[in-house]
Amino acid sequence: MTAVRQSSGMILVDAGMSFPDEEMPGIDLVLPDFTFLREHADELKGVVLTHGHEDHVGSLPYLLREFNVPVYGTKLTLGLVRSKLQEFGIKKGDLREIKAGDTQNLGGFGLEFINVNHSIPDAIAIAIRTTAGLILFSGDYKIDLTPIEGDPMDLGRLAELGNEGVLAYFGDSTNSERPGFVPSERIVGETLNDVFQKAKGRIIVASFASHIHRVSQVVEAAKKHNRLVGVAGRSMVRNVQIARDLGYLDLPDNMFVDQQRDFGRIPDSEIVVMMTGSQGEPLAALSRVANGTHRSIEAGPGDTVVIAAHPIPGNERGVSRTINNLMKRGAEVCYSPLMPVHVSGHAAQEEQKIVLSLLKPRYLVPVHGEFRHLRHHANTAMTLGIPEENIFILENGDRLEFKNGKARRDESVSAGMFLVDGGGLAEGASGVMRERQQLSEDGMFIVVARVNAQNGQLLGPPDLISRGFVSPQGSNGLMEQSTETVRKTLERTAKGRVTDRGELKNAVRKDLSSFLSNKTGKRPIILPLIVEV
Amino acid sequence: MTAVRQSSGMILVDAGMSFPDEEMPGIDLVLPDFTFLREHADELKGVVLTHGHEDHVGSLPYLLREFNVPVYGTKLTLGLVRSKLQEFGIKKGDLREIKAGDTQNLGGFGLEFINVNHSIPDAIAIAIRTTAGLILFSGDYKIDLTPIEGDPMDLGRLAELGNEGVLAYFGDSTNSERPGFVPSERIVGETLNDVFQKAKGRIIVASFASHIHRVSQVVEAAKKHNRLVGVAGRSMVRNVQIARDLGYLDLPDNMFVDQQRDFGRIPDSEIVVMMTGSQGEPLAALSRVANGTHRSIEAGPGDTVVIAAHPIPGNERGVSRTINNLMKRGAEVCYSPLMPVHVSGHAAQEEQKIVLSLLKPRYLVPVHGEFRHLRHHANTAMTLGIPEENIFILENGDRLEFKNGKARRDESVSAGMFLVDGGGLAEGASGVMRERQQLSEDGMFIVVARVNAQNGQLLGPPDLISRGFVSPQGSNGLMEQSTETVRKTLERTAKGRVTDRGELKNAVRKDLSSFLSNKTGKRPIILPLIVEV
Repeated sequence: MTAVRQSSGMILVDAGMSFPDEEMPGIDLVLPDFTFLREHADELKGVVLTHGHEDHVGSLPYLLREFNVPVYGTKLTLGLVRSKLQEFGIKKGDLREIKAGDTQNLGGFGLEFINVNHSIPDAIAIAIRTTAGLILFSGDYKIDLTPIEGDPMDLGRLAELGNEGVLAYFGDSTNSERPGFVPSERIVGETLNDVFQKAKGRIIVASFASHIHRVSQVVEAAKKHNRLVGVAGRSMVRNVQIARDLGYLDLPDNMFVDQQRDFGRIPDSEIVVMMTGSQGEPLAALSRVANGTHRSIEAGPGDTVVIAAHPIPGNERGVSRTINNLMKRGAEVCYSPLMPVHVSGHAAQEEQKIVLSLLKPRYLVPVHGEFRHLRHHANTAMTLGIPEENIFILENGDRLEFKNGKARRDESVSAGMFLVDGGGLAEGASGVMRERQQLSEDGMFIVVARVNAQNGQLLGPPDLISRGFVSPQGSNGLMEQSTETVRKTLERTAKGRVTDRGELKNAVRKDLSSFLSNKTGKRPIILPLIVEV
Repeated sequence: MTAVRQSSGMILVDAGMSFPDEEMPGIDLVLPDFTFLREHADELKGVVLTHGHEDHVGSLPYLLREFNVPVYGTKLTLGLVRSKLQEFGIKKGDLREIKAGDTQNLGGFGLEFINVNHSIPDAIAIAIRTTAGLILFSGDYKIDLTPIEGDPMDLGRLAELGNEGVLAYFGDSTNSERPGFVPSERIVGETLNDVFQKAKGRIIVASFASHIHRVSQVVEAAKKHNRLVGVAGRSMVRNVQIARDLGYLDLPDNMFVDQQRDFGRIPDSEIVVMMTGSQGEPLAALSRVANGTHRSIEAGPGDTVVIAAHPIPGNERGVSRTINNLMKRGAEVCYSPLMPVHVSGHAAQEEQKIVLSLLKPRYLVPVHGEFRHLRHHANTAMTLGIPEENIFILENGDRLEFKNGKARRDESVSAGMFLVDGGGLAEGASGVMRERQQLSEDGMFIVVARVNAQNGQLLGPPDLISRGFVSPQGSNGLMEQSTETVRKTLERTAKGRVTDRGELKNAVRKDLSSFLSNKTGKRPIILPLIVEV
């Protein structure tokens, strides 16, 4: 999410979300922090979307709950957003459809939408005429000169804008470590054709649910090889439905197996099932098939499974587990890089150079990607003569001010991540994340001690209960010794007439913790409960 | 760890360990389960090691605590094992040095050791003459025809054994998805030379501590470019010491910076520091440098960091974080595949074909690797004419019996993983692992209720304490409502005269759990404590 602001108002380019990393156990989603928006709510005139992927639209339901502003996007992008808003029970969303080539005034900004290629149809770049000059957001893009659907990226219009003069370019950096040019999506179709040619049994193809081009190519292969098409996995079912309704997917009714329970009735050699789970997500359709727990689909000897996606960093083990399990069942598994069943949707270095050369921006702000990717995008731009001082690598909350044709870093604003845990937004989550990590690595001990309310004397031995704690082999009587440790502490404090509850608890915590750490090398969370009787 | 057994006795080939996956929070190491060995302890005659990597020798300290048997290995392998045993306070280890080319009788088996190349010196394959025939364990290997140290893999001896007749071949499968031939370790030396040539500031090279060849090449580059060599990270310091002592690393004293505190005194352009942390391990030397928390080494603008290793699956995010942090500090970071700073130590498909063609084994047992890698190794062997029914893909505990020149699967034995948590072996760990996962994702609630010991009446409102649980924004009074839920449950049970403690606790758990799940989508562990007064 990027805010573009001038005296006439503020607009947002995209409103995405991300997924938790291993330091956020139990967290479902990560949203941008809306604090700055709240502080400037009266300036906010609307949101403009580049495409329909979660990392660009995923925080919209949360945003629109708080801010009642119009949202501009292309047909498919809005189709996906509409369904997302419905899921969240939001009816009032003011969604305004635009298309590549359109221009639009919003909050004093002159917007123009430019066709780009990406792994989802209807993706656009956004040119914004500001009082400071023309700036351009690429969104996620690649240059596909033989796209599956729609037109190649509108390089002509980028060239015109470049000749007019671009003040700043905010360019996709995801693939900036990759030399060369990303192949056209079309080569995946050729591989699929080969796979369908050879396959005798059932075919399963897993990919991102939003990758409508990929689904489209599976449908084309199915037409050629006389197979019906089924769809499994909630998001895949939903997205295929939207794409069919809006005319982005030519999947006629007589080819479509609507009900999952019908999959089993169709001979294996006459069906292909598209499904979720290409990232090895434990609960997704493909993982269930791999574990043998899917209620209507199996894969075994003679069947072919195509994993038409790369693992996103962090998902490698999950994907590998899925591949192993499918192979153990005897299925043939096709995956990248062993077979060209996936191509990236993000521009590699030569594509980035083409766009930079056409736009000739005065300033570059590399966006989308980790720091290493932003840095490599910057390096590529420098080989084209953009001076290092005209490249700004920004972090969340950083501000860039353009004035009289010059850019400078302004003071950063409050920004960061907002964690969604279960149903709602999580407050004070960072402390809880630390607790969860400690709980999961060292476990916890609860100490219940009953004391005389008058004199603080211990009544009977304390009760110790542990969770997530392993008694090491050979450490016989660890619980008894722990109980004894606590009993001694409480007797000592009682003698010393420690009546302050906090001190009492601290003493128990300290003594038991050092006993356990000494015996087991672990430091569980210790929770002393003093019950006065 | 593989047991080879005949009527004369049993020997073990290797005794490795592995690292926990994301489903084993807090676990330090994973060992093979020794149950079968305990049941057949009297048969065990010794252990033979192929090389000194943790996944082949790491469980030895645990094994030797229980079984007093001789361990055979090459000089460097035993040097590493000796240091490991010392660390565990084991003095009695009966370590017997052998070298490639030697033969040895052990427990009625005729052993022969054959030189192979790998990412650690002194690696061997092991041929075993059994009463059933000749079997061969490759250990981890690659074919390096221009090795940094020692001889190329002894293909000649493999050919002779192949002509004599190999009953079964247990072959390394790690790289069996990779077509072609893995390049020689020497190409890394060429890259390092280029890096040293260009570097102006400090150079840091991170790699596996056991990769003595890699260290050796860094030392060679340092000699050529007049830099001193420092070493950081506990295992790197230890392994370099062992390799120098045993003559596997030619690092003269006058080039070696012995004390970490001296690193800062030497001009940046005159030192290279080898360190641990190539896998992004949070506490390793390189991560500390990347975070700016290393006590004697910094990396900033002008400095060069080489990550001379590939991330092991599961470590990608950690490695990426390290790269990002180093780049944010302004250091130049060289890593694979952007630069050829790493080559694998495991044979790719063409190398596997060469070994299979020389050995011409009747049976193949693909080993080392996940199921997908074993399967691909099998597929490669099938292209060379080994029939599918002569290939056995085994899992932990599977038994293969050879009799009259024929192999067949025998009943599996008790096997699996044994988790090491903190200091000791963990008993009953799988239940605890589930608890830890639930604690880390959903947190926990403790309910303390004081009841009258006579009539079961609740005395005052129950106390609720949570850990690892996030109150969602907007769910005001969740704790109060939870308390109220518990109060109602306890009143109801008191009226119904439920005096059974177990039933009482179950009722509290059930009601509070469904309340919380309904309100927050989370299912924390609920621990009701009923204190009778």
